[in-house]
Amino acid sequence: MPHLLIIGGSDAGISAALRARQVNPALEVTVIVADGYANYSICGLPFWLAGETADWRDLAHRSAGEIEDQGIRLLLKRTAQAIDPTGKTVAVVDEDGRSRRMAYDKLVIATGAVPARPPIKGLEQPGVFFLRTMGDGFALQELLAVQSPTSAVVVGAGYIGLEMAEALTRRGWPVTVVEYLPSALTTLDAPLGDLVAEELRGQGVTVATGVAVQRIDPQGSHLLVSGSGGFRAQANLVLVATGVRPEARLAAAAGIETGKWGAIRVSQAMETNMSDVYAAGDCVETYHRLLERHDYLPLGSTAHRQGRIAGENGADGQALFSGTLGTQVVQVFDLVAARTGLRDAEARQANFDPLTVQTEVWDHKVYYPGAHRLYVRVTGDRRTGRLLGAQIVGHRTAEVSKRVDVFATALFNHMNVEALNDLDLSYTPPLSTPWDAVQVAAQAWMEKRAPDCRNRL
Amino acid sequence: MPHLLIIGGSDAGISAALRARQVNPALEVTVIVADGYANYSICGLPFWLAGETADWRDLAHRSAGEIEDQGIRLLLKRTAQAIDPTGKTVAVVDEDGRSRRMAYDKLVIATGAVPARPPIKGLEQPGVFFLRTMGDGFALQELLAVQSPTSAVVVGAGYIGLEMAEALTRRGWPVTVVEYLPSALTTLDAPLGDLVAEELRGQGVTVATGVAVQRIDPQGSHLLVSGSGGFRAQANLVLVATGVRPEARLAAAAGIETGKWGAIRVSQAMETNMSDVYAAGDCVETYHRLLERHDYLPLGSTAHRQGRIAGENGADGQALFSGTLGTQVVQVFDLVAARTGLRDAEARQANFDPLTVQTEVWDHKVYYPGAHRLYVRVTGDRRTGRLLGAQIVGHRTAEVSKRVDVFATALFNHMNVEALNDLDLSYTPPLSTPWDAVQVAAQAWMEKRAPDCRNRL
Repeated sequence: MPHLLIIGGSDAGISAALRARQVNPALEVTVIVADGYANYSICGLPFWLAGETADWRDLAHRSAGEIEDQGIRLLLKRTAQAIDPTGKTVAVVDEDGRSRRMAYDKLVIATGAVPARPPIKGLEQPGVFFLRTMGDGFALQELLAVQSPTSAVVVGAGYIGLEMAEALTRRGWPVTVVEYLPSALTTLDAPLGDLVAEELRGQGVTVATGVAVQRIDPQGSHLLVSGSGGFRAQANLVLVATGVRPEARLAAAAGIETGKWGAIRVSQAMETNMSDVYAAGDCVETYHRLLERHDYLPLGSTAHRQGRIAGENGADGQALFSGTLGTQVVQVFDLVAARTGLRDAEARQANFDPLTVQTEVWDHKVYYPGAHRLYVRVTGDRRTGRLLGAQIVGHRTAEVSKRVDVFATALFNHMNVEALNDLDLSYTPPLSTPWDAVQVAAQAWMEKRAPDCRNRL
Repeated sequence: MPHLLIIGGSDAGISAALRARQVNPALEVTVIVADGYANYSICGLPFWLAGETADWRDLAHRSAGEIEDQGIRLLLKRTAQAIDPTGKTVAVVDEDGRSRRMAYDKLVIATGAVPARPPIKGLEQPGVFFLRTMGDGFALQELLAVQSPTSAVVVGAGYIGLEMAEALTRRGWPVTVVEYLPSALTTLDAPLGDLVAEELRGQGVTVATGVAVQRIDPQGSHLLVSGSGGFRAQANLVLVATGVRPEARLAAAAGIETGKWGAIRVSQAMETNMSDVYAAGDCVETYHRLLERHDYLPLGSTAHRQGRIAGENGADGQALFSGTLGTQVVQVFDLVAARTGLRDAEARQANFDPLTVQTEVWDHKVYYPGAHRLYVRVTGDRRTGRLLGAQIVGHRTAEVSKRVDVFATALFNHMNVEALNDLDLSYTPPLSTPWDAVQVAAQAWMEKRAPDCRNRL
């Protein structure tokens, strides 16, 4: 019976295992999991730490039992130490340090990512946390359980940073978010990032942007965080959330090719340069559907999709990864911020001729209670009219996320901005407008591109 | 200066006028409006009658002033009596019965629809209402204002019927909904319609299906509604909401071709068989993108899109209507029910080989508070794998409407069910799952189509 071995038991690894067994129920599938938490939703840690999710066990996408019921063998608390792609074996060490070699016919590397460590002095001391693994979550929860709320500094205003700012605020901690770049949530353009910063401030969070944190020093019973421009903040808890980098050391040591981000190079079949060795998830370069080249864009949804492709091909399938659009969304208190595709600067760099137009539109007819404004930015190519990307910020009840998904589905199909008006979208006054917000934004873009529409005729 | 004349001041007519002026700011544009309410959202009447929208004036998409500011001439309370397509004139009568002929270079007919009158005896008596125009709304509101709530019967469990059942319940009226067909909301398949009926019952509405209402008789100070199977209900108010039929008499009298539903035949350019005469909205046959033929599907969103095309072409443009997918949505108390594309029976009739699979999925990760189940039905072609349609029912906070729009965007682009898994959709635990509900439903469909996936490889 052929043996598919998978290194890594998070999103990509388990998706690969499940798909492989689905495609070929006769395949032997083994997953090596470094900790005891296979298939946990680490994206959910902020909600558990916020107290919104009561039990950390609920963070499991599936229980170990459910995975094993699919005929998948889980090897928990084992670490892959070395891959021999010639002999087709992996050296695996258990908790007690005992090593053994496991043979494979096909291998999937899904070793994920680790937190980026910014050049800040003093990251090693007690009270400074990263948040990536279940273990990181437990360590942080332990502090939150015993300390009465004093003050927290979150370094990094990205998704995890902002979710943790909210979580700590909900736990009663006064929070300062400090971001190196000039605006918050720099995955969006600054005008939209500013709306998110405004929401944070409205909820009592202090937000400092354009500050390079330089050092964290002990100061009596707490820590002093210092940065550029005279930034100083006292904290009993510092959370560093400045992104991740791929964990590809195991692959690189085996001669598997990595790219400029240090991520594993893969084809659209998710195959590495070594035959019968696939890789997926946060440890790989991701094919971008619009850029038509690889990029590093670690996201849980992408990891699931890539894992599924790797699993299908690991079971002798012929699936191809259709590419990412960088679609992503975050909820920050009462706001949701989402994007898909390219932003203006990214499009320009990729030799498009981008035009970006921001529009304010209502999520539904104003005469029905509870209407909220949506802030929509549409990026399109001025020359061809092609849709390149969209960003939306709006109230959490305003269907921001699935509106970005309408843009994402249009982008996937290479639609023009103008063609968005041809879409037959659903309308009822409590939920939308006769031209949906997506289409009103498209019309604003067209108006800006060619104010005299006769030119088009 | 060329003159574009438009008959009808609701969604299609005003959309045509606005687009024509946008495309050609030199064009003279006149809109003949039968009542005093140009560009009112008649879809909003149930919400005003419910008391959710305080002022009926708020139902206007735009005020008359805003329309006139675009250089559009509005002729309120005028009725078009006859079209002379040879002489290119329209006979128009004002409130006082004075008639005059207006010349046009191009004409758009947007005369809308009127309520269907089912074969029920006694529809003419006081206490029996239809709901189509602002005037209908005022008449009903007058009764609601003076009568204390006693009992209401709504005939027809379609969109307007259910919205009005909710509205009257909110006004304190005990309501019975009676439907001729075997389930409620028959724009959806019965298992989903049953969920909607269950919601209505949970909110105190009596629902009777499979009942043909035969007569409405006066009985003392109220009405007695009688129907098949011994159905009898007392009511002080009967609302008849059994759909609409196209108002195309004016066009037909001028020799303009109509089709089997009595609706005006138009090309994808929204042109009738008479040159320089266009038509749009609820009075026309609508091109269906999947059926590749015309159908009668009167919807506000479609009227807007068709009006825009007619207006662009009325201004010498060359736009084509890309077709409807029948996308529609309704909110009924705490539920939202939406659909796009073809249902199983419709697909079979159109010579597809349909397979429909119903799945229950969560709208977001269950570990985050407020997760709701979505009931998703996906219809696809068994032979080709092509996506043909989708229906969703779920909680009003579960982004049902925009999830159906993701399906609608996929349908527009002729995607296969399987390709839905390739979409890069947004994910964050409070709003979605790593495979969005749309994709989980697609996977369930694929599993049912070919349980042994190896066949596909």
